[in-house]
Amino acid sequence: MDHMTVSDFFPMWNQLEPIQQMRLSGSAAPRTIRQGTVIHRGSTDCVGLLLILSGQLRGYILSDEGREITIYRLFERDICLLSASCIMNSIQFEITIEAEKDTEVLIIPPDVYKEVMEQSAPIANYTREIMSSRFSDVMWLIEQVMWKSMDRRLAAFLLEESALEGSSVLTLTHEKIGNHMGTAREVVTRMLRYFQSDGMVKLTRGKVEITDAAGLSALAD
Amino acid sequence: MDHMTVSDFFPMWNQLEPIQQMRLSGSAAPRTIRQGTVIHRGSTDCVGLLLILSGQLRGYILSDEGREITIYRLFERDICLLSASCIMNSIQFEITIEAEKDTEVLIIPPDVYKEVMEQSAPIANYTREIMSSRFSDVMWLIEQVMWKSMDRRLAAFLLEESALEGSSVLTLTHEKIGNHMGTAREVVTRMLRYFQSDGMVKLTRGKVEITDAAGLSALAD
Repeated sequence: MDHMTVSDFFPMWNQLEPIQQMRLSGSAAPRTIRQGTVIHRGSTDCVGLLLILSGQLRGYILSDEGREITIYRLFERDICLLSASCIMNSIQFEITIEAEKDTEVLIIPPDVYKEVMEQSAPIANYTREIMSSRFSDVMWLIEQVMWKSMDRRLAAFLLEESALEGSSVLTLTHEKIGNHMGTAREVVTRMLRYFQSDGMVKLTRGKVEITDAAGLSALAD
Repeated sequence: MDHMTVSDFFPMWNQLEPIQQMRLSGSAAPRTIRQGTVIHRGSTDCVGLLLILSGQLRGYILSDEGREITIYRLFERDICLLSASCIMNSIQFEITIEAEKDTEVLIIPPDVYKEVMEQSAPIANYTREIMSSRFSDVMWLIEQVMWKSMDRRLAAFLLEESALEGSSVLTLTHEKIGNHMGTAREVVTRMLRYFQSDGMVKLTRGKVEITDAAGLSALAD
């Protein structure tokens, strides 16, 4: 998918004026973000808009004590907007964005994007739609956290990971799972052992194998 | 504050074309929403943009089992955007909005607002900023829920209520507090009794009196 260009990320490209198209296309710089790299750290960074050609990004928040919770994940064809949060006054929270896999992006500098967004209603409205999608992700998360018990959330998380990796064997430490879910490693370990005793997973060092996807699925719903 | 007009709600009013100003102003209809009235219920309603002249609105989500959690509150001079969620494709969650006090609003019909927003970059960008503010409210809530213990959240809630009502005596049932915080009545009762034993509140039927605001404040921070 490295053949995608800037225009492929904006469904309303044809509604832009030629000069605006040129500003966006001409400023976009390709970059490879290595797996594990933090590309945006709260309000101290403002790298710009990331158009994802391939790979996987994770947005998460961090507590004072260093605990994490995953807010959303972005994939090929997605646009990462919050890495340009400095151009949006009303974003009053700190998000960290890291590459979960080697990720190829096109980066549009924040000042260029801001300039086009201020001129163009189609771009401004599309930006609002992207923001609304992230907002919806967070609302989904709130409902999960408030109303779904940890066993259901963990079952859903394992199935999601399995689908993403295309494998029933997940290379994941309990600590890493805890970081995704905003809970302590010990809670994850206890729940996984419970799943294992029910025959739904098999645990080995650093790995979780799903042995009863249907059972997990029934639990998750 | 009933002398506010539509233009007072949009800081970039002067950047709109006269015809756009007329569309917004001409379509805005005044309405009084009585305390306790639900003005917007998930995706089944789309009453429009609410410009709040006076009063207080609460946005909350509802679980399948009927549990609530307050997502945000809006006051005089605020714009309620999610009551026009039908004009924003990417809003994929259901929010309920009710009047916590008798509330005077100007209502801009969703189709009119959509039309202007699609034409005007200033309106589109301002709408995105309002959306970002609500998004930030929800991110704040996630951090509270994930990382603050219930006692700190309850202390903060009581102080906020006291400031809103301008009184140290709050007329609030434990069930209502639970609905705000997304927790069960029993949890609230237990915590309030603990606060009472510490001399921070005094409980009487249907009322919570704050007797040590400094103590609650120290706990909340």
